[in-house]
Amino acid sequence: MLEFIDLEEAKAILKTNTPSLPKEEVSLIDCHQRVLAEDIFSEINQPPFNRSPLDGYAFRAEDSILANKDNGVRLKVIEEIYAGFCANKEVTEGTAIRLMTGAPIPKGANCVIKQEDTVFKDGFVEIFSKFSPWQNICFQGEDIKKGQPILEKDTVLNSNEIGVLASIGCKNVSVYPKPKVGILSTGDELVSIEEQLSPGKIYNSSLYCLCSRLKELHCNPIDMGIAGDDIDTLTERIKCGLSKSDILITTGGVSVGKKDLIKDVMKNLGADLLFWKVAIKPGSPIFCSCLNNKLIISLSGNPAAAITTFEILVHPILAEITGRRNFALHKVNALLKQDFNKKSKVRRFIRGTLSYSGDTAIVDITKSNQGNGILSSSLNSNCLIDIPPNSSPLSKGQVVQVVLI
Amino acid sequence: MLEFIDLEEAKAILKTNTPSLPKEEVSLIDCHQRVLAEDIFSEINQPPFNRSPLDGYAFRAEDSILANKDNGVRLKVIEEIYAGFCANKEVTEGTAIRLMTGAPIPKGANCVIKQEDTVFKDGFVEIFSKFSPWQNICFQGEDIKKGQPILEKDTVLNSNEIGVLASIGCKNVSVYPKPKVGILSTGDELVSIEEQLSPGKIYNSSLYCLCSRLKELHCNPIDMGIAGDDIDTLTERIKCGLSKSDILITTGGVSVGKKDLIKDVMKNLGADLLFWKVAIKPGSPIFCSCLNNKLIISLSGNPAAAITTFEILVHPILAEITGRRNFALHKVNALLKQDFNKKSKVRRFIRGTLSYSGDTAIVDITKSNQGNGILSSSLNSNCLIDIPPNSSPLSKGQVVQVVLI
Repeated sequence: MLEFIDLEEAKAILKTNTPSLPKEEVSLIDCHQRVLAEDIFSEINQPPFNRSPLDGYAFRAEDSILANKDNGVRLKVIEEIYAGFCANKEVTEGTAIRLMTGAPIPKGANCVIKQEDTVFKDGFVEIFSKFSPWQNICFQGEDIKKGQPILEKDTVLNSNEIGVLASIGCKNVSVYPKPKVGILSTGDELVSIEEQLSPGKIYNSSLYCLCSRLKELHCNPIDMGIAGDDIDTLTERIKCGLSKSDILITTGGVSVGKKDLIKDVMKNLGADLLFWKVAIKPGSPIFCSCLNNKLIISLSGNPAAAITTFEILVHPILAEITGRRNFALHKVNALLKQDFNKKSKVRRFIRGTLSYSGDTAIVDITKSNQGNGILSSSLNSNCLIDIPPNSSPLSKGQVVQVVLI
Repeated sequence: MLEFIDLEEAKAILKTNTPSLPKEEVSLIDCHQRVLAEDIFSEINQPPFNRSPLDGYAFRAEDSILANKDNGVRLKVIEEIYAGFCANKEVTEGTAIRLMTGAPIPKGANCVIKQEDTVFKDGFVEIFSKFSPWQNICFQGEDIKKGQPILEKDTVLNSNEIGVLASIGCKNVSVYPKPKVGILSTGDELVSIEEQLSPGKIYNSSLYCLCSRLKELHCNPIDMGIAGDDIDTLTERIKCGLSKSDILITTGGVSVGKKDLIKDVMKNLGADLLFWKVAIKPGSPIFCSCLNNKLIISLSGNPAAAITTFEILVHPILAEITGRRNFALHKVNALLKQDFNKKSKVRRFIRGTLSYSGDTAIVDITKSNQGNGILSSSLNSNCLIDIPPNSSPLSKGQVVQVVLI
């Protein structure tokens, strides 16, 4: 098994082993924030027919040639129609049909006059101005034409997109999958936040970080509970977790201690052991394996380390699966707002807050104490500062690369 | 009833009539993207006890005074503990306890040496360097101190916040409500996208726009179906919709046509009629009323008009209810990217796409044809250009105010 590898190598190995999940066919009402896995063309014209944009009368523009404000032209009103209904009659010379906004333009008519501009009396409507053919008509297909490309593959479906798809009657769309990601928390020291803390125990915070982050990344997190540090229990719980997930994340048990059992469990299960430890700080003790074409990503038991590694190594895989590869982990160069006094032997990621002063990106180190145990440094952070291996301490004003999260 | 009022007046009336919904107590796992309705202080220290940041041996720094690389100091290993368990024994002069990462520092010990830097033989561990008291110890409360303020009211709970709350055992949090917003679509011309389009009918796209937009605004949309233009049906459906929602939105039936019945229905129901028609384009025919302390917002049957009015008038109310008033509808001045040739007698909102070229905000009119019937102009738009009443046509390069959506 590869050990203590470079971050880019680890990323490449994970990319190669990213499962290819099938596209999903989802009904339009449920596809909010999903990503289109197909180009969409309209199968209809929208509007589907010429219609009236106002409440008024449809008639033949030719009949209004002699109309002016002093001499009205009188047309016999032969029918009245509402939106949603078609006229039974046809407009002919000297006739008009009253219609409401959204009603189809009756056969024979080629323009519409606003109700307020007319006088209705004894079954006749009087018109006082000359109309042009096709005046005041919403044309069939003027919004969207039949066969027209509407949305491209890889578009995120937000409310505007979903509204337009509904307007052309698109019932179901093919979208990128929403992977089920199991989270198995391991460690005798963990207790659920529902329980009382007893001596030596800590709350299982990684579960909560990861569950919420997976929701943010448009995945379905599944809480697989807490397993103690026992090889038989872990084996059963990992098998169970894998059967219910597309990807399984475990936390804990991947360092060098006597109870770091995850590697042994995966070896016993016959998994393909991809790599153990990546040359980054924090989060170095990540272990990745593959069983039955499913990835098992085993993160550090330390929450701050686990979420950093998750962001750098797992987020890109999930972005690929969910069709959001173009939106994930953008890199920006920014000016460091304060000194950072530590040397970095291996590549180091520290939490920062990126902001702009005009055109200039500035990054503030969220909290000076970013030790492995410090989860609160994640508050208010929106990026990771990527410090290359073998770096000296950094100075205020220096340009650093940050990864937006 | 007030009619054809100014937009700012309409906003003020709606603000006054915005229902005050109770805060909700939500379990931590379910409060992703909710907004805190209380300040949070930690009830515990995190870590809850002094603990070891590595696998190694806990001992008394005093015992290593004479240690150097040539002359090791030998300490008797009296116990071995793992994360999650406390030592039974106490470290005394000349003794050490083996411990794993995360294990509590045993009584009597004041430092930890990394396993890799020691030699273990016959029950004794040998140490080859001098240690200072409190070296290699993660201190109780070094991440978060008991009583410390953690998060302020009005903070949005994303994964970082939720992880930190879990680390201090915060089981439930008080958050702003997630209002149930019913959507009753009215109009004889509407058919569900599940059905076949027949002559004169159009698909009910407003429902889909509004449902998705309500999800984006952290509300619970409830589809109340389609009601035809019939006063008895509408009355029943509105009563039913109100009983199931905190706020009811209707679409259609609010113009001046013969089948624009919503006003009559609300009057018959004894509602407080707040206003009808606002001096904006599109979306002027909005009607708002209040019954049993619940708002009924009746939008135009025209989808493009409905979503514009929704954004300008309804979004601010929902932002207020959901605790997101600080994030809603920011205004920016931007340079217009092309001419806009229409005069604007009333205040007009047109869809645009805002982007930045360095420091300069530029707004592109999404599509030149933004007629009432044109829903596709919403695609790719991220803002509304706010054109004051009595404006002449606008020129390329002119500064306009835009509202981000």
